[in-house]
This record gives sequence, structure tokens and C-alpha cells, in this order.
Amino acid sequence: MTTMRILTEAELRRIVPLDLEAIACVEDAFHALATRAVAMPPILRLDIPEHRGEVDVKTAYVPGLDGFAIKISPGFFDNPKIGLPSTNGLMVLFSTTTGLVQAVLLDNGYLTDVRTAAAGAVAARHLSRKDASVAAIFGAGMQARLQLQALRLVRPIRQARIWARDAAKAEAAADDLTKRLGFPVHATADGRTAVDGADIVVTTTPSETPVLRAEWLRPGQHVTAMGSDAEHKNEIEPAVITGAGLYVADSLRQTRRLGELHHAIEAGLVAADTIFPELGEIVAGRKPGRTGPEQITVADLTGTGIQDTAIATLAAARAAATGAGTSFTS
Amino acid sequence: MTTMRILTEAELRRIVPLDLEAIACVEDAFHALATRAVAMPPILRLDIPEHRGEVDVKTAYVPGLDGFAIKISPGFFDNPKIGLPSTNGLMVLFSTTTGLVQAVLLDNGYLTDVRTAAAGAVAARHLSRKDASVAAIFGAGMQARLQLQALRLVRPIRQARIWARDAAKAEAAADDLTKRLGFPVHATADGRTAVDGADIVVTTTPSETPVLRAEWLRPGQHVTAMGSDAEHKNEIEPAVITGAGLYVADSLRQTRRLGELHHAIEAGLVAADTIFPELGEIVAGRKPGRTGPEQITVADLTGTGIQDTAIATLAAARAAATGAGTSFTS
Repeated sequence: MTTMRILTEAELRRIVPLDLEAIACVEDAFHALATRAVAMPPILRLDIPEHRGEVDVKTAYVPGLDGFAIKISPGFFDNPKIGLPSTNGLMVLFSTTTGLVQAVLLDNGYLTDVRTAAAGAVAARHLSRKDASVAAIFGAGMQARLQLQALRLVRPIRQARIWARDAAKAEAAADDLTKRLGFPVHATADGRTAVDGADIVVTTTPSETPVLRAEWLRPGQHVTAMGSDAEHKNEIEPAVITGAGLYVADSLRQTRRLGELHHAIEAGLVAADTIFPELGEIVAGRKPGRTGPEQITVADLTGTGIQDTAIATLAAARAAATGAGTSFTS
Repeated sequence: MTTMRILTEAELRRIVPLDLEAIACVEDAFHALATRAVAMPPILRLDIPEHRGEVDVKTAYVPGLDGFAIKISPGFFDNPKIGLPSTNGLMVLFSTTTGLVQAVLLDNGYLTDVRTAAAGAVAARHLSRKDASVAAIFGAGMQARLQLQALRLVRPIRQARIWARDAAKAEAAADDLTKRLGFPVHATADGRTAVDGADIVVTTTPSETPVLRAEWLRPGQHVTAMGSDAEHKNEIEPAVITGAGLYVADSLRQTRRLGELHHAIEAGLVAADTIFPELGEIVAGRKPGRTGPEQITVADLTGTGIQDTAIATLAAARAAATGAGTSFTS
């Protein structure tokens, strides 16, 4: 028999907001990925084509942490037709010494939203100019909103643009964010206009053809592409990678297989075995981040199990400290 | 928000006993594996060597079923030193149409025990002689007990022998099973004696060197090896496979990689691409099972995600029918 805590999405939203501590927690995870003997097996993936469904299972073990998380993320893309969100799922936190269940986090994908946005902030902190104040966001979904919210925690953002394939959604997101963040957020009808004069560009779409052109970029800009988490997804032209002064992967093993880098390799523009720095190596000071104000930098984020273990550990610690959740014995 | 049922181990033990219905449910799963477009991705495996821990994640999608299970099975082999069981874990059942969580089954490995023993019974039903009445069990753990209990549900077992490396444990298991099953179960000090005159031999050990010798086998016997679920485990001499009239895999893709077959391939006795029948093909009547009373048959069971989806579906149906478990909304 073991006693665990079960937390609902509402409880998790209350105790794990997207804040500087969440960003620090994800930053520490990347640091560990570069400096400790982290075990992060390949993602388990199940496809259910009859219902446009896919499920990813991610995990990572970080020596020194008390727990490791296993995250199950279903994405069922016909759900919105019946009024349900596309993405759902939960995380389970296990003890690293006994394997016993410590916590079941019924977050419906919320913690993934937080740790994904936090990774965007970590990338911006190490790769964008310190004075970056204008952001361009591609996409108008949950991550479009959260990436902008995360950016303003680490950079002095005072203006943003949103481009999305669906102009009405871009308008709605821009209105919403203007009210919420207290600085002007405008929807723009074309991507080039969004990028023009931006210091940071974040792509958050599920696009299968590039939405960001290399010719639009100017010296000093930083790009974070975080929409691609599967082989067929592709948000940025491969020439963005080859044209950048610095390309950084969250996990090179993953971006070679399913990130933006994968498409540059497929296009024959980058050799498959080219070594690029990983975000954790830069966080840990083992490799340089941005080296000058004119450099164009690119972060390719595919999402890693270590971020899940980090945010689940934070959630369980907060639950223990506040008494949130329901205790359950089995 | 979604509403799910959460079931404890005690509740699951009550509503999902090892019975003929559990065996039928696992048999149907193997039938589906052979006849439907089942998706069963490779097992995700995480190792935590500092604590002699390992975690397997298995899943399978069966077209036509309302749900699919994801099972997380931690095994931490230092646990018994502190009075905890080595194996634990849980299953989560998701809707195949929306990906929403339907049930969280906090079974601590119990449902795995049932579906694993049930697979042994399915193998015996299709591969052992109908009049098989003497069983030899290698090992004295939970599966040793459950395999024998499952066998007697499908064959007229009236006597059994138990061999284990630890003679005291074999004695204890034999005493326990004699009382529980109502027929004589004897512990034997050597494997050869256990096998001599047995109709069905089941190996249930975590051994890394063969415990069953080919020269001990006689015409008409059936062997089920179910202890090997990882590359380094090996219960039966490779010559058992090459000497058998019929070798059957639960999943040929898995037994080539981590079953007993893997060791026969490694030893150069079997070509890596040799096609053998799978249990599901025999259940479905697509390939013959035992073809005569003198044939030696071998079943190599590594454990499949489809068994987990099947038993989790049964558990959720029983919970719905009986109102067992706790309703939880998140």
C-alpha cells in the first residue's frame, strides 16, 4: 500500500502558475540535462488515425531528484468539433528510490503548457538581446498566449504582434493579450510585417509548411520555434537555420529526428551528424549563447521529458507545502 | 473537465479475479492482435541503476475497443530490503475517440499479474495436450502461483511440482498451493525431476542463465517460458527452441529482441528473420497449434501492451457495472 496525492487541473493551476519560479525550475532541468547523467528514453508514440488521435509518452530521470515523472499526452484533433480541447493527459510522479507512485497530476495538459512556455523564456533569456522589447508571435492558440506571457517575465517586452492563418483568431488573441499584459499587442495580416522590427520571434503553430521565411529576418533577431514535435511538422524555412549565427536544440537527438533541424537535414542543407549546442549546455555555461548584438539566433524546441519531471516535481512540492490535492491510498 | 473512475488495488482484486473471463479477455486480445490493425508501439524503458530500478511503459490500441490502456510498471529490486514489493505501478485507460482519461487503475501491478497468468492459460489451451494433468513450475514467486492457478482453469491438472533456486521458498509455495488448489503440489530439489513426467512446464523466474535443459524434455510436453521480459533474462536453453516441434511467440517482434528466441538467435541457432507463429494467429485459427500428442511445444511470452489494454478494459467495465471505485472530476 502506498499513499499518493491526486491533484486536479484547477488545483494545479492555482499552485503552479507560469511565473519566474516555473521558469527557473525548467532552466535547472536544462542545466541538469547538460551536466548530470540524465536518462531520457526516446518518446513512446501511439497513433489512432481513425480518430485523428496521437499519444506521446515522455519521461526523464535526473540523478539527485527525489522523483521522476511519466507524462501521457493525448492529442485528438477532432475534439474541438464536439466542444472538447484537442490536448489532454496527465503526469504521474514516481519515487526514484522505490518506484512507488507519489502523485497523480490530472492536469489535462496544463503543466505541459507551463513547462513549454517556460522553455521559451529560458531560450529567450540566453539567446535574445537583453534589451529585446518587441515580440512577434506566430499562432493564436494557448502557446501563443503563454509564450508571450513568459517572454515578458525575462525581457522588457513593451509591444507585440500576432500573426495567425486565421485572422479572426489573431485579432481575438491580440485583444485578449493587450488587456491582460498591459502593452499593445496587434494582429498583423502577413508574417513579414510581424517580423519586421521584432527582437524576438516565436512560432507556435502546428504547421506542416514553413510560416517563417529566412529572407524576413534581420541581424540581432532571435527565433524560437516550438510548434514542431513530430516529423511532419515544419514551421521555419530550413534556410533560417543555415542562415543563423547560432542554432540551439533543446535535445539534439530529438531535433534531428522531429524538430526544425530534421527538415534542414532532409533538405540536404545540414549534415545529419553536425554538432550544435543544446540549450542546457548554454544554461550551464559550457557553450556560449548569443555572442553579439547582430547575431541571429534560433532555438528549436521539441519538448523534453526532463521538463516534465521538473514541473511535476515542482507541483508535488507545492502540493506538499500547501496541502493541496486529495490523499489516496492503494 | 472530464470525469473518471479511480480504483485501488483492493477494489481491483475484488472485481477482476483470475478467472475464465479474464482468460477469455486476454485470449480475445491475442485474437485481435492477429486479425485487426492493432497498434502496439515498442516498449518505453527507463533505467535507474542507482536504485536497481527499471520502468517499462506499454500500450496498445485495438480498433473496435472503446479504450486503450497505458501501463507504467516500475520494478525496483532493492525494495524487498525495506519491506516493499519490487514491482508496482498503475494503468490509465483512455477513450479511443477523445483521448480523455476514463479510469486510473492504481493496481500496484496486480492487473499485470492477472493478464500475465491469463496468457499462460491461453498458451496452454492452444498448445498443451487436452488431457494435460501434471504441471511443473519453475520459480516460487507470485507468477509461479498464478500460472498454476490459471492452468487448472483450462486443463485437468491434478498434480504439480515446484522447483526454485531457493528450496525453502519452493517448499512454502508448494504447501500454500496444495492447501489452496486441493491437489498435491510438491517441491523438488532439481529441475530434471520436476520436468520428468510433467505435461506442462512453466518457467517464471528472472534467471539470466537457463534453468530448463533441452535434454530433460520428452515428447508431448508443452513449455511456457514467461520470465524473460528483458534482453539479459534467459530461462530456457536455446536448444529447447530448436528441438521443439512448434515454437510460438506472443509477439515475434518482441521475442526476437528480448524473449527466449533472442538467445537462440544470439547463439546462432536460429536465423534472425525466421518466421514463427504468434499466439494470436493460433487463437484465430490462422495457423495450427499443437498437431499431435507427441509434439513438443514452446510458448515464449514477453508480455504485450494488448494484454494491458484488454484487462484494463475489463476492469473499467466491471467498475461501471458494480459502481466500484471513486469518481473524480478534473
